[in-house]
Amino acid sequence: MGLLATLLIFGVSLSLASAERPMRRSLVFPMETDNSYVELVPQKDLDMGAFTLCMRVATELAEGNREIILFAYRTLYHDELNVWREADGRYGLYLSGDGVLFHLPELNTFQTHLCLTWDSKLGMAAFHVDGKRSIRKVYKPGHKVQKGGKVILGQDPDSFLKDFDSKQSFIGEITDVNMWDYVLSDAMIEALHVGKRMPRGNIFDWETIELIVNGNVKVITEEL
Amino acid sequence: MGLLATLLIFGVSLSLASAERPMRRSLVFPMETDNSYVELVPQKDLDMGAFTLCMRVATELAEGNREIILFAYRTLYHDELNVWREADGRYGLYLSGDGVLFHLPELNTFQTHLCLTWDSKLGMAAFHVDGKRSIRKVYKPGHKVQKGGKVILGQDPDSFLKDFDSKQSFIGEITDVNMWDYVLSDAMIEALHVGKRMPRGNIFDWETIELIVNGNVKVITEEL
Amino acid sequence: MGLLATLLIFGVSLSLASAERPMRRSLVFPMETDNSYVELVPQKDLDMGAFTLCMRVATELAEGNREIILFAYRTLYHDELNVWREADGRYGLYLSGDGVLFHLPELNTFQTHLCLTWDSKLGMAAFHVDGKRSIRKVYKPGHKVQKGGKVILGQDPDSFLKDFDSKQSFIGEITDVNMWDYVLSDAMIEALHVGKRMPRGNIFDWETIELIVNGNVKVITEEL
Repeated sequence: MGLLATLLIFGVSLSLASAERPMRRSLVFPMETDNSYVELVPQKDLDMGAFTLCMRVATELAEGNREIILFAYRTLYHDELNVWREADGRYGLYLSGDGVLFHLPELNTFQTHLCLTWDSKLGMAAFHVDGKRSIRKVYKPGHKVQKGGKVILGQDPDSFLKDFDSKQSFIGEITDVNMWDYVLSDAMIEALHVGKRMPRGNIFDWETIELIVNGNVKVITEEL
Repeated sequence: MGLLATLLIFGVSLSLASAERPMRRSLVFPMETDNSYVELVPQKDLDMGAFTLCMRVATELAEGNREIILFAYRTLYHDELNVWREADGRYGLYLSGDGVLFHLPELNTFQTHLCLTWDSKLGMAAFHVDGKRSIRKVYKPGHKVQKGGKVILGQDPDSFLKDFDSKQSFIGEITDVNMWDYVLSDAMIEALHVGKRMPRGNIFDWETIELIVNGNVKVITEEL
Repeated sequence: MGLLATLLIFGVSLSLASAERPMRRSLVFPMETDNSYVELVPQKDLDMGAFTLCMRVATELAEGNREIILFAYRTLYHDELNVWREADGRYGLYLSGDGVLFHLPELNTFQTHLCLTWDSKLGMAAFHVDGKRSIRKVYKPGHKVQKGGKVILGQDPDSFLKDFDSKQSFIGEITDVNMWDYVLSDAMIEALHVGKRMPRGNIFDWETIELIVNGNVKVITEEL
């Protein structure tokens, strides 16, 4: 009887806890600048033979035809891992050199869930847009992403965290940036898209990530 | 036994009651005029440091490239809060002066659920189209909407409820106009979009609102 | 107590079993070549007065305007059963001679479930795109598909498994290719589209099919 009561109370408190809506930070980049960006502090080195990178992005820039930087990881001398929306509307992944390009639906003012997977073994790279995977493309098998750099959102550094070009800057909103040093399955990425919050990123976990804001970027906390 | 029968009958009558479909008024603006409009009588002053404004709109005008007035709140000397579909297809919010513009999907002959939120604190403004939020834009932080004016649908008054331009008038249907003097969460606006009728607007509540019709506007009552 | 323990263990093992996700092979054609293709070994002769052919296809080639070979069954002297995406964007079925063309949605970087049915009796041919059937067109009533050839994906053989043209080759991903020597109902094809794995193809069954890979084609095994 005592045990049953305990179990029931435990059950109730669990339900109450799960009824509280989770909160999430969102980064608002309100205008074109050459000095506004957010540095993401990783939980461990970006020393990777494979990765999954996800984020939710909304921008009205894709109406035009300029480059838009979506993610930049730069070490002292190299652009280690950059993600672009190109001037011609395609999407590009660049791992230290020439990139691989994909034809995806345009970003727009509503939130798009964008993921990117790459594995060194076969060199398979693919985007996932709102839970749907693009074709896989073979890109840099055997390559490795090097540690020791910095990840920023909002600008493309042409040298180590300097030399930003406002015409490549991001305007709009970015949230829920997570990174894993392995490839998530299509089904897991679809689950993340519709709101599942597991598995948490082991390189970047947006729920606990430390953000260093520079310039004109607003950090909004919103209910999910 | 008698009690059980009573309960069953009671249960049946409840079900019948809930089977009655709610009714809603809809405003039909059948043609281009410079004198047809509907005044909305608010429940309290539009004395606001934040707001949410929602409506359901259908129009074929967006096929062309003229301005379309969607909502006008004017005091004696100022356009306090105007919402436009611009000639170039963008959507604009104007709080007493220059506006902020958004790239949204075009309105069309079917009903679009359109909401707009703004908060004085950070100046965050966003549209919600059929439950999906646009990017947030920073617009007039610290500003306040002033009381003492009148809200009309169908025309843009260039002076206090006069000087209408037929080429800016609204043609089509508007219904379910609600306004709150605070910002509703994304989840609440998504719930309104799919038909939830809470929370009711505290500035305008379409279920009880007093409408003053001028010129050629039809008020239709429809089942939901 | 012993029984309960047994049931619990049984329950756990069942859950574990159902947690195992089925795997599926996918063919990645990474680049334009005139020598990369995959031969599909059938379970029985393609000696058919009717058929259903299904596959899941993703390609970015449909952005351009060149021919794309989707399926080629050739006997020594004839193209017995070819499926094309034409240069003008239409889709064509060719049974040994002139083809029949359909206007379908464009293929894209996400997976499209494409089926094709044909019956000799009335000559009814139709495509099914993501579970939705096109109009039926009358094509070669009384005709019969002849046995004795080979089925390949990735190239169009202008002679028996030779004379490939890189500008007709397939680039992208193909998986879940199944063929029946009868016409499946619209409802069955819709069920296949959303993931039902019955009925298994009696000409080609992707779960057990023998694949002979030539040139630069990657065979990926993915979780469903």
